[in-house]
Amino acid sequence: MAVYVISRRLLGGGSTTSQLAGTLRYGACWRSYSTSFREEKDTFGPILVPSDKLWGAQTQRSLQNFDIGGERERMPEPIVRAFGILKKCAAKVNMEYGLDPAIGKAIMQAAQEVAEGKLNDHFPLVVWQTGSGTQSNMNANEVIANRAAEILGHKRGEKIVHPNDHVNRSQSSNDTFPTVMHIAAAMETNSRLIPNLKVLHNSLHSKSVEFKDIVKIGRTHTQDATPLTLGQEFSGYTTQVKYGIDRVICCLPRMYQLAQGGTAVGTGLNTKKGFDVKIASAVAEETSLPFVTAENKFEALAAHDAFVETSGALNTVAASLMKIANDVRLLGSGPRCGLGELILPENEPGSSIMPGKVNPTQCEALTMVCAQVIGNHVAITVGGSNGHFELNVFKPMIASGLLHSLRLLGDASASFEKNCVRGIQANRERISKLLHESLMLVTSLNPKIGYDNAAAVAKKAHKEGTTLKDAALKLGVLNSEEFDNLVVPEKMIGPSD
Amino acid sequence: MAVYVISRRLLGGGSTTSQLAGTLRYGACWRSYSTSFREEKDTFGPILVPSDKLWGAQTQRSLQNFDIGGERERMPEPIVRAFGILKKCAAKVNMEYGLDPAIGKAIMQAAQEVAEGKLNDHFPLVVWQTGSGTQSNMNANEVIANRAAEILGHKRGEKIVHPNDHVNRSQSSNDTFPTVMHIAAAMETNSRLIPNLKVLHNSLHSKSVEFKDIVKIGRTHTQDATPLTLGQEFSGYTTQVKYGIDRVICCLPRMYQLAQGGTAVGTGLNTKKGFDVKIASAVAEETSLPFVTAENKFEALAAHDAFVETSGALNTVAASLMKIANDVRLLGSGPRCGLGELILPENEPGSSIMPGKVNPTQCEALTMVCAQVIGNHVAITVGGSNGHFELNVFKPMIASGLLHSLRLLGDASASFEKNCVRGIQANRERISKLLHESLMLVTSLNPKIGYDNAAAVAKKAHKEGTTLKDAALKLGVLNSEEFDNLVVPEKMIGPSD
Amino acid sequence: MAVYVISRRLLGGGSTTSQLAGTLRYGACWRSYSTSFREEKDTFGPILVPSDKLWGAQTQRSLQNFDIGGERERMPEPIVRAFGILKKCAAKVNMEYGLDPAIGKAIMQAAQEVAEGKLNDHFPLVVWQTGSGTQSNMNANEVIANRAAEILGHKRGEKIVHPNDHVNRSQSSNDTFPTVMHIAAAMETNSRLIPNLKVLHNSLHSKSVEFKDIVKIGRTHTQDATPLTLGQEFSGYTTQVKYGIDRVICCLPRMYQLAQGGTAVGTGLNTKKGFDVKIASAVAEETSLPFVTAENKFEALAAHDAFVETSGALNTVAASLMKIANDVRLLGSGPRCGLGELILPENEPGSSIMPGKVNPTQCEALTMVCAQVIGNHVAITVGGSNGHFELNVFKPMIASGLLHSLRLLGDASASFEKNCVRGIQANRERISKLLHESLMLVTSLNPKIGYDNAAAVAKKAHKEGTTLKDAALKLGVLNSEEFDNLVVPEKMIGPSD
Amino acid sequence: MAVYVISRRLLGGGSTTSQLAGTLRYGACWRSYSTSFREEKDTFGPILVPSDKLWGAQTQRSLQNFDIGGERERMPEPIVRAFGILKKCAAKVNMEYGLDPAIGKAIMQAAQEVAEGKLNDHFPLVVWQTGSGTQSNMNANEVIANRAAEILGHKRGEKIVHPNDHVNRSQSSNDTFPTVMHIAAAMETNSRLIPNLKVLHNSLHSKSVEFKDIVKIGRTHTQDATPLTLGQEFSGYTTQVKYGIDRVICCLPRMYQLAQGGTAVGTGLNTKKGFDVKIASAVAEETSLPFVTAENKFEALAAHDAFVETSGALNTVAASLMKIANDVRLLGSGPRCGLGELILPENEPGSSIMPGKVNPTQCEALTMVCAQVIGNHVAITVGGSNGHFELNVFKPMIASGLLHSLRLLGDASASFEKNCVRGIQANRERISKLLHESLMLVTSLNPKIGYDNAAAVAKKAHKEGTTLKDAALKLGVLNSEEFDNLVVPEKMIGPSD
Repeated sequence: MAVYVISRRLLGGGSTTSQLAGTLRYGACWRSYSTSFREEKDTFGPILVPSDKLWGAQTQRSLQNFDIGGERERMPEPIVRAFGILKKCAAKVNMEYGLDPAIGKAIMQAAQEVAEGKLNDHFPLVVWQTGSGTQSNMNANEVIANRAAEILGHKRGEKIVHPNDHVNRSQSSNDTFPTVMHIAAAMETNSRLIPNLKVLHNSLHSKSVEFKDIVKIGRTHTQDATPLTLGQEFSGYTTQVKYGIDRVICCLPRMYQLAQGGTAVGTGLNTKKGFDVKIASAVAEETSLPFVTAENKFEALAAHDAFVETSGALNTVAASLMKIANDVRLLGSGPRCGLGELILPENEPGSSIMPGKVNPTQCEALTMVCAQVIGNHVAITVGGSNGHFELNVFKPMIASGLLHSLRLLGDASASFEKNCVRGIQANRERISKLLHESLMLVTSLNPKIGYDNAAAVAKKAHKEGTTLKDAALKLGVLNSEEFDNLVVPEKMIGPSD
Repeated sequence: MAVYVISRRLLGGGSTTSQLAGTLRYGACWRSYSTSFREEKDTFGPILVPSDKLWGAQTQRSLQNFDIGGERERMPEPIVRAFGILKKCAAKVNMEYGLDPAIGKAIMQAAQEVAEGKLNDHFPLVVWQTGSGTQSNMNANEVIANRAAEILGHKRGEKIVHPNDHVNRSQSSNDTFPTVMHIAAAMETNSRLIPNLKVLHNSLHSKSVEFKDIVKIGRTHTQDATPLTLGQEFSGYTTQVKYGIDRVICCLPRMYQLAQGGTAVGTGLNTKKGFDVKIASAVAEETSLPFVTAENKFEALAAHDAFVETSGALNTVAASLMKIANDVRLLGSGPRCGLGELILPENEPGSSIMPGKVNPTQCEALTMVCAQVIGNHVAITVGGSNGHFELNVFKPMIASGLLHSLRLLGDASASFEKNCVRGIQANRERISKLLHESLMLVTSLNPKIGYDNAAAVAKKAHKEGTTLKDAALKLGVLNSEEFDNLVVPEKMIGPSD
Repeated sequence: MAVYVISRRLLGGGSTTSQLAGTLRYGACWRSYSTSFREEKDTFGPILVPSDKLWGAQTQRSLQNFDIGGERERMPEPIVRAFGILKKCAAKVNMEYGLDPAIGKAIMQAAQEVAEGKLNDHFPLVVWQTGSGTQSNMNANEVIANRAAEILGHKRGEKIVHPNDHVNRSQSSNDTFPTVMHIAAAMETNSRLIPNLKVLHNSLHSKSVEFKDIVKIGRTHTQDATPLTLGQEFSGYTTQVKYGIDRVICCLPRMYQLAQGGTAVGTGLNTKKGFDVKIASAVAEETSLPFVTAENKFEALAAHDAFVETSGALNTVAASLMKIANDVRLLGSGPRCGLGELILPENEPGSSIMPGKVNPTQCEALTMVCAQVIGNHVAITVGGSNGHFELNVFKPMIASGLLHSLRLLGDASASFEKNCVRGIQANRERISKLLHESLMLVTSLNPKIGYDNAAAVAKKAHKEGTTLKDAALKLGVLNSEEFDNLVVPEKMIGPSD
Repeated sequence: MAVYVISRRLLGGGSTTSQLAGTLRYGACWRSYSTSFREEKDTFGPILVPSDKLWGAQTQRSLQNFDIGGERERMPEPIVRAFGILKKCAAKVNMEYGLDPAIGKAIMQAAQEVAEGKLNDHFPLVVWQTGSGTQSNMNANEVIANRAAEILGHKRGEKIVHPNDHVNRSQSSNDTFPTVMHIAAAMETNSRLIPNLKVLHNSLHSKSVEFKDIVKIGRTHTQDATPLTLGQEFSGYTTQVKYGIDRVICCLPRMYQLAQGGTAVGTGLNTKKGFDVKIASAVAEETSLPFVTAENKFEALAAHDAFVETSGALNTVAASLMKIANDVRLLGSGPRCGLGELILPENEPGSSIMPGKVNPTQCEALTMVCAQVIGNHVAITVGGSNGHFELNVFKPMIASGLLHSLRLLGDASASFEKNCVRGIQANRERISKLLHESLMLVTSLNPKIGYDNAAAVAKKAHKEGTTLKDAALKLGVLNSEEFDNLVVPEKMIGPSD
């Protein structure tokens, strides 16, 4: 791990000096590296790697060749962790097929550290690399190999544990990357999105129950319509989220299919029979999720329809949440000049001067997330439709897009629930006032005074800006008591017997 | 049904003359109307309607107020037919709840004619109207009322059968339109898309079997890779289509839920208890599809998540078919300067001078369809996310978009199967030539002559443009017989024992 | 043009009988054909064509091979008319290069009929055909050739005027189709979209002036904010439409570039030097639009970036109009339980019972159109990004999508202006009431009574649901006259001196 | 800056302990904070802030209320830097309007540090916050106020320099955030995207010149077509990029319009006349870009059409680059079993065994970027179309999306140029071989031997798999010398004289 001797020539066309400068410049963009380097090698020859990093030559080359987007474009952490899981399972299964147990166990230990996120700093590559994710697979192989070597008492770069021959044994980037895509997406779906949607669902359901007796004006075409209860209104939202969860769950059977065992083109060349089934079992055990080996490995490498499909489910959830959040902010608009039916929790100053000004900021964060999810879905679809022959090479973008959407939707659902829905109160006074001012309650008079008289009442009230009751009394079509007996919104909220 | 007396004043601000002119102008754009008109009325007053048309006042108003897009933007026929089905079922159920049987039966007969497409010419309204589809619902009510009146021996426009009181009894546009959306989409899915995808699936599967012994070069990153069989390659396509069918089927449970019975805002005001269940049953019986009443009517009116979801499934199918069609045209590219592994059927002259020039026109039609489906999906998503309160008012666009996608995907799948896939032949000679020229077969030599020698063979062949065998013999690392024994692509298409 | 002799064998594998049946079946889907047929030929051999149609063999083949979508998917009329213009100009220029003037003039006359839409019924092909639009080019060539033959006193099918040698002389589908795409789009842009947007712009501007003195509450985050005038609010909409027009105009320079002269791959093989410039001039003269020959023909065939770009401009216009229409319907919501600041024109019954219920149907039609335009844009983008080598083969879909968006946006803008914007009235009473109830006017008191007292006033008013004035008087911080002098919304609508 | 006294109660419902825990938990997710805290206050009361951070109460609240997406979702750096620029300019102009010069200068110095990226670590907020970007505006105000206070020798949190009264003077989040959006986007466009596209354009143009004499087979419909030069093919790509630059530049006039001076709703309340013009001038001077004050401030706050428009231009560039990158990888496919006309630079090992396997990884990174840009465009469009009344509240998402697209397209264009285009070589031997094997050259024989004989030659060659020459000689239609004189692809690459 000594400081590199500057005079050594490294690559055709490049000198150590310029390369060092490049590395340092690169480092300068992101973060400060140590100033010492060690040499790593691949079939292209030697290359300098920061001494304090576990990665090897291929990772370093990718860093230099794909200076796109900067640090925030790094391969998402769930992918890195899924590589840890997969490589651990691969070592375990490979030992059954003859991998030296000492090496196998060291790999398992190193891979476990990756799975736990302990080595995140050693995964510097961005999403915008080779479209098979090869370089991230090699990043995982290199980090795990070097770490396993250290565990076995050796030095980095010595290749006691070989990134390809040992860590990547019986694997190809072309099957490992889709495998980690599926592992990462299934885990995020199960551990983040679905639980958070369930919490949101429960909270909306509670509100639906809490508000079940509050009769309010309905609105269609944004115009006043017949009444319903606020609880009924929230039951619609509740159902949307419930079905959203169902939609996501519907996609899981295809997400649980793992490509591992297909190797380079789906045939499974260089694996042994049964390897694919064993590794899917190992991953299932490791994650407690029902992963299985993919029914058809050619489809599993050449297409990512399962991602396009799942993204479509998220797109539907986004459309649902956009509707809900829009309703909440419009129903909560005011305090004086809006609809004002809901009182939203105040989480931060809306304005230093105007008490009662509560900006529906959680609705805003959520609707922005929904827009992004809808956009990511198009990106994923474009990527998913553009595969060629035996391999789709939009893998990192597709993976990153879906994980982005899963994370954003999951987090924003939780935030919306915690900081908004949970605290929503009905402004009963306002709701009641609007309801009773509404002209559409005139419908109830039809049976008693006839359509023509009812219409006359409504028209008079509309023209003169009075209540229906005022108009009815002025027209003398019925008296106050009769009116109060007939105009009962509470009787208008369901079918009749 | 006499020619209208010109001097009669119709609407505030308009004269009969200018209105007639407007109607005629309108007619001129699309098609020639009769020059005689009858008067129809609604709550806005009288209006002229072409004598030979069954529609009434509200349809006529919509025609004049929404001059958007011209004839090809008319409400899709499956919606019109679904209105026929729904109105027939509504009359049947309404008779159970007290509708005069004479009127009820006439409505059923008239509605049946709508369901059979016999009255299509009487549905002139475009998609770009009121967002609840109210005007198309009224179009159906008016046409059926007038036709039912005729069946009963009365004249059009006399309102013996009333569009609202009889045909639309216990219904609102707000629940009928989503109901016909679901009926139309479910029927198109079951009668067009799924059967055609199944035919395509079977045809791809047959090719997969037919080609199971043809070993060919694999391609990843568009670059030469290890071999697979052409049958394996087609098995990937087969699986994509199979899963596509599964994806569409997954959406059906939510598509089978009907909003009918929710009326204006989802509460079911003005219906009787049980009406919703009965009407869903009647529709189920009429269509032989398992429709049920929607679990939550508020969701069913205010959102169209089931359409966004189904469109997402079609979007996934489009991504799959785009991949397949792209592969087919690239594998069939040539005849001399492309990959040339597949021979596609010749359906039309590709060029008057160049024999063998077969343009992959079916692939082109299909990929264009896929692009449109992907676009329609975004339109549907935007519409689906923009509902307000008790009603989503992007209904006609959402319905039209999904039906467009269903029709295009269904038809194009059938066309692609019939005019392309079914007739695909393998160019065995070309496939074999490419396979044996490939340098990657060198992999097989590793066990015998070692990695270094194998690499030397490959490098020499690449540099000198010779075959691997030539290079190997020149280098003297093995003899001709040994080479032939070792380099057997047929052994490279699966895992080893 | 005699009825075809049934026993004649036509195509390998097909018999006349089955083909006739096919043709008739096909006809049955769409429209009734004559029952007599004539024989037309191409390099594939003879084929039956309906006697009353001018098209030839290649059109007929396409009809049979692309049974996708039905009649409403026919190539848009502006494309058909643009073919008329182009073929007329081509004949004119070809006469300069030696085309027999008798034939040339007959072609010009026939093409003129196509340009005027007189022969629309002879263009039956759908969008979903070969991706180069070859079949529609041949449809134009065949129709014009047959019609020109008739003009010259000959019969259809005799090929006195040859579709390829005469009508298509010096042309290829690969340059004619992009040329008609550009002609059609530029004409629709100039004759429909821009004029209609200008009318809408003017109408919004008029409203902005009309409403310039109406001070109203502002709303940010959907919450009450500081005031502005209704005229200022409408000036924002006016500016959006104005910039929208600018955006569309910005794209025209690239739309005015014509591919004609590039022939098959962009090189201009089989044309004479100068042909490209002359034909662009001729089209410019014919259309009175500044068309020029494309700077680079390779780009003009292989990509349709000009369409993707223009669609992007329409997408922006759609986003603008969506915002405007949403605001209009929300500001017009009510009549009692919404914001109610605008009174929208009543165009049709909103409800038979509820006077004052005006559904904002024009807003709904417009926002649905906007959603579709946004979706079409994605379809066009997907098509535009998927060209290969010398030719993009998503041409008909791209053309159809953009023309669809142009038509819908143009028509819907006109409809929205005519049936909504023009008749919008301010509900001055309601606006004033909301403005003066608003708590945010308290801001004006700060200089006089200090922030703390002002906040106390606002908080008291909010808590007790009273006016600011009531609260201020109760707190005794100032008297009625002082309050009225200080709280003047009219002074809050601009920067201070 | 002392460690906080644990017993102090902070917020209704929360205790210091739980809040501390929350803060620490939060910190644990992202990065380790110091364990000491200071108290900051806003109108909601006191709150704990990490002692080593410059931000204040409102930033801290946002951190806690919007736990969405984690660190990689932080507001993009160009926005943070643009806040530095804007706040510096605001202080400068405010001094003209009476701001204490001592405070003004300290603000300018602190703001300059923000502009230089020195205080990035003090901007922890994520994109998914309030939709007006208020919290990031307050983050900037708080950081600059605290830093300015330090510059003046005071402590953080003392509010010697007040975030609102001093730093945010005459400003509202509603005008500052759109202003920084425009500054950031215009700067990224000018400093990153356009220069990198120009470099790519120049490099493609150089290749076009370098390859101008290499005649090759053309391909349409992916099928063999008439020839062109490789230089002509690259000239198409060159033109696409050139027009792409034009398209982006076309959008800049509207991007240079700044909202600043509109304050809360666009009226400019609380600013002085002329403030808007002066601040736009100051920003123009600071950035050397021609910023002006927005013509209409209502549009500038309520809509982000300029972003939707610019995103549309990027979407077009993405479509162009997708086409180019796809062509490059397909033309470079092989080495043995693809088209093989281009030799792409080898940047990293494609495979350890297969020499000559060069994966087109730069094409893959670029096409993934293009897909993401297309997706971001939809997200931006959805956000842009969903504004309400006086404010669009999708601002941070829109800003983040466009900056993401600008960065990715800019970086990927540079990477593609540097690591791929620059090093592309023509495989002249392969190109020549394909060209001369092509059957379409037969076209040249027409004038000499007639269409029928030429077709016979081509058919024979196709059927027997021989060269055209072989077939011609065998058929005896001309001799070897005649053939060689006639079949000259070099004469087929342009119009004739």
